[in-house]
Amino acid sequence: MSEFIQNPKHQDQVWMQRAITLAKLGQYSTKPNPNVGCVIVKNGQLVGEGFHPKAGQPHAEVFAMREAGEHAKGATAYVTLEPCAHYGRTPPCAKGLVEAGVAKVVVACPDPNPLVAGKGVQILKDAGIDVEVGVCEAEAHQLNLGFLKTMATGMPYVRLKVASSLDGRTAMASGESKWITGREARQDVQHWRAISGAVITGIETVLADDCQLNVRQLNGVEDLSTVVQPLRIVLDRQGRLPLTAKILEQSETVMVMGPYRKELEDLGVIQLQTQPLKELLQTLAQQYQIYDVLVEAGATLSTAFLKEQLVDELISYVAPTFLGQTARAMFNAEFSLMAEQLRFKLIDVTQVGNDVCLKLIPSSQETV
Amino acid sequence: MSEFIQNPKHQDQVWMQRAITLAKLGQYSTKPNPNVGCVIVKNGQLVGEGFHPKAGQPHAEVFAMREAGEHAKGATAYVTLEPCAHYGRTPPCAKGLVEAGVAKVVVACPDPNPLVAGKGVQILKDAGIDVEVGVCEAEAHQLNLGFLKTMATGMPYVRLKVASSLDGRTAMASGESKWITGREARQDVQHWRAISGAVITGIETVLADDCQLNVRQLNGVEDLSTVVQPLRIVLDRQGRLPLTAKILEQSETVMVMGPYRKELEDLGVIQLQTQPLKELLQTLAQQYQIYDVLVEAGATLSTAFLKEQLVDELISYVAPTFLGQTARAMFNAEFSLMAEQLRFKLIDVTQVGNDVCLKLIPSSQETV
Repeated sequence: MSEFIQNPKHQDQVWMQRAITLAKLGQYSTKPNPNVGCVIVKNGQLVGEGFHPKAGQPHAEVFAMREAGEHAKGATAYVTLEPCAHYGRTPPCAKGLVEAGVAKVVVACPDPNPLVAGKGVQILKDAGIDVEVGVCEAEAHQLNLGFLKTMATGMPYVRLKVASSLDGRTAMASGESKWITGREARQDVQHWRAISGAVITGIETVLADDCQLNVRQLNGVEDLSTVVQPLRIVLDRQGRLPLTAKILEQSETVMVMGPYRKELEDLGVIQLQTQPLKELLQTLAQQYQIYDVLVEAGATLSTAFLKEQLVDELISYVAPTFLGQTARAMFNAEFSLMAEQLRFKLIDVTQVGNDVCLKLIPSSQETV
Repeated sequence: MSEFIQNPKHQDQVWMQRAITLAKLGQYSTKPNPNVGCVIVKNGQLVGEGFHPKAGQPHAEVFAMREAGEHAKGATAYVTLEPCAHYGRTPPCAKGLVEAGVAKVVVACPDPNPLVAGKGVQILKDAGIDVEVGVCEAEAHQLNLGFLKTMATGMPYVRLKVASSLDGRTAMASGESKWITGREARQDVQHWRAISGAVITGIETVLADDCQLNVRQLNGVEDLSTVVQPLRIVLDRQGRLPLTAKILEQSETVMVMGPYRKELEDLGVIQLQTQPLKELLQTLAQQYQIYDVLVEAGATLSTAFLKEQLVDELISYVAPTFLGQTARAMFNAEFSLMAEQLRFKLIDVTQVGNDVCLKLIPSSQETV
C-alpha cells in the first residue's frame, strides 16, 4: 500500500470512492429508489461490497454484508447514503449493520427522507457503533440529485436540455433542423433520459419531430431491459396529440397533460388536467415518485421553464455551425436591458464528438 | 535518465519539445520574423540553447552555438525551423552550424520561404552533416501559422474572434453590451492581439466602443515594451473615423482603409484605398509583412469574412447567458436551407473564467 492510502483519512476517501463507483452501477435501474453503494473493510482489506440494483431488491448494505459474512465483525462499513431505519420492502439496514457486528460506519450523505432523517445513524450510535458522516459528501450527493432535492423540498430536480448552433438557433425558419448536433451528442442525451424519472416535452415538438423520447441506446449498457424507462410527458393543452404518434407505441409509459380524452385512456395513457408547470412538477414528485425530470422541448416551453426559475441544471449542446439570423431562436424571451439577461454559472464543459456540451446552473439558484 | 528518454527516437522528440518551448518565448516579440528555438545536445547532455527574440537580433541557432562553444563539435542541433541559407540581417545559420562542426541537425519544419526552401538543408548535407526533417513538425508548425501560410500562399493566417451569449447574441437591440463575457475572457483576447501583425475592425465598432485594440496586459509578460504591438486597421469606407477616437492616441500604428484624409496623414496614420477584403489581406501580407491577422469586428464585417471564406480559425467566446430573441445576432447572413449553413470543425474547447472558448476551423478549409 502506498503512503497515501496508509493515511486513515485518505483510506476513508479511497473506500468511499469505491462505494460511489458501485452506487453508479445502479444509475439507470434503481428509480425511484436512490443509488447507493457500500463496501466493508477489515484491517485494510475489502471483505464485502454491493450496490442497490433495483427497487424491490436488497439495499447495498445487504449485498455487502452477505459477502463479508463473519468478516463483518469489527469491520468498517462505508455507505454512500445514511442506512435506512424504516421497514419498507426490506428490513432496516441500520439494524442489519448492528447485527452484523461492524465496529464503525462511515456515511457520505445523511438521508433527507423524513422517514429516515438521522434515525439510521441513531440506531447505529445506540448500539455503540462509531459513526462518521460527511466523507465525500459532495460527490455522493451527485449520485442522487433528484432524490435528495425532492426529499428536502418536495420538488424534483429539473434538467433542461437544449441543442443549438453557435449562433443560438435550433432550426431554419422552415422548421428544417436535421441535424444540427452530431451523432455523439444525440447519443449522449440518452444518458440524461435514462437517469430521469420523466421526460417532458411540448406538443409542438411531438408534431414536428414525431419523437419517442425513450432510451434506445446507452453507452456501456448491453441489456436495455435493465433500464427503467422514463415516463414521457406531453404538454398538450388543446388535445392535439395524434393517436398515430410514435410516442404512443409504448402508451403505458406516456402521460399527457391536457383535456381528458377517452381514446388516450383506452391506450393506458396517464392523463393529467392542465396545471401550471410548477404544480405539474410537484405532482410528479409527490404523486408519481419522479425525482429527476428532463425537459426536451422547443424554445417556447424551454423559455417558460427558465423564466419561471424551475430549472436546476441546463445541459446545452452547441454545434459549431452558423445558421443565420432568420433561423429559429433557441430562447424566445424578449429583453431590452442587459439587466434582464438570464445568466448561468458554468459547471463543466466537454467536447462530445464535434459538438460542445456545457453544464450550467442558473445564477439565481447558485446558493441553493 | 528514464527508459523513455534513452530511446533515440524519444530523445529526438524530447529535445525538439525543448526547442519548441524556447521558440514560444519569442511569440510576442519576433514579428514579422518567425518564432524559432534551438538546442544543441552532446552525449545526451544539453550544451547550448537559444531562441530568436526579436527582428534584427541573432537567430536561435546563433545563441545556441555561442552557448555550446567547443562542445558543438560532433553534437546534434535541434531546430524548430529549417536553418536559413540566405544573407539577411544575419549570416546564414546553415553555414554557422557547418562551421561549428555539428554532426547532425534535426529540423521540425522545412522553411517554405522561397529564399530558403531546402537550401539550408542542402548546405548542411553538402558539408557531410546528417540531417533529419519532420520531428514534431505538426507542433512546430503551430508556432508560425501566419509566417508559414504566407510563405506558401501569399495570404496571411486570419483569426476571427467573436464573443456572444449562449443564444448567439452580441448586444441588446439598443446596442448595450457591457459586459457579456467576463474579465478572464476579455484578458484572454489580448494574447491573440499580441501574436498578430494586425487587428482589423470596422468603423461601427470603433464608433460604438471607442476601442483601442492594442495590447495592454498579457499573462506572464511584465514588460509590455517587448511586445510588438499589432497594426490596428479600421475599415472606414465613408471616412467617418473621428480624430478624437481613442485608437488614434497611438496613431502611428493605425491603418485606415477608406477615402484619403489629409488630417489622418498628418497624424502619421497609414492610409489605404478601399479594396475587397481578400485584396486587403494580400496587401497586408505582401507589402506590410503582416502574416497573422486578427479580426475583431461586429456582425456585418465578421459575417463578410466568413462568407468570403477568408477565415482560417474562428475563436469563439461563449458567455453562459441568454439575452433573448430581440437582442443583436452575432452572424447576420440569411440562410433558408440547412445546406447553406456554415459548419466548423471543433479543434479545442476550454473554460476561461465563467465563459467557454471554442477554437474552430471552417469545414471548407479542413483540407488546407
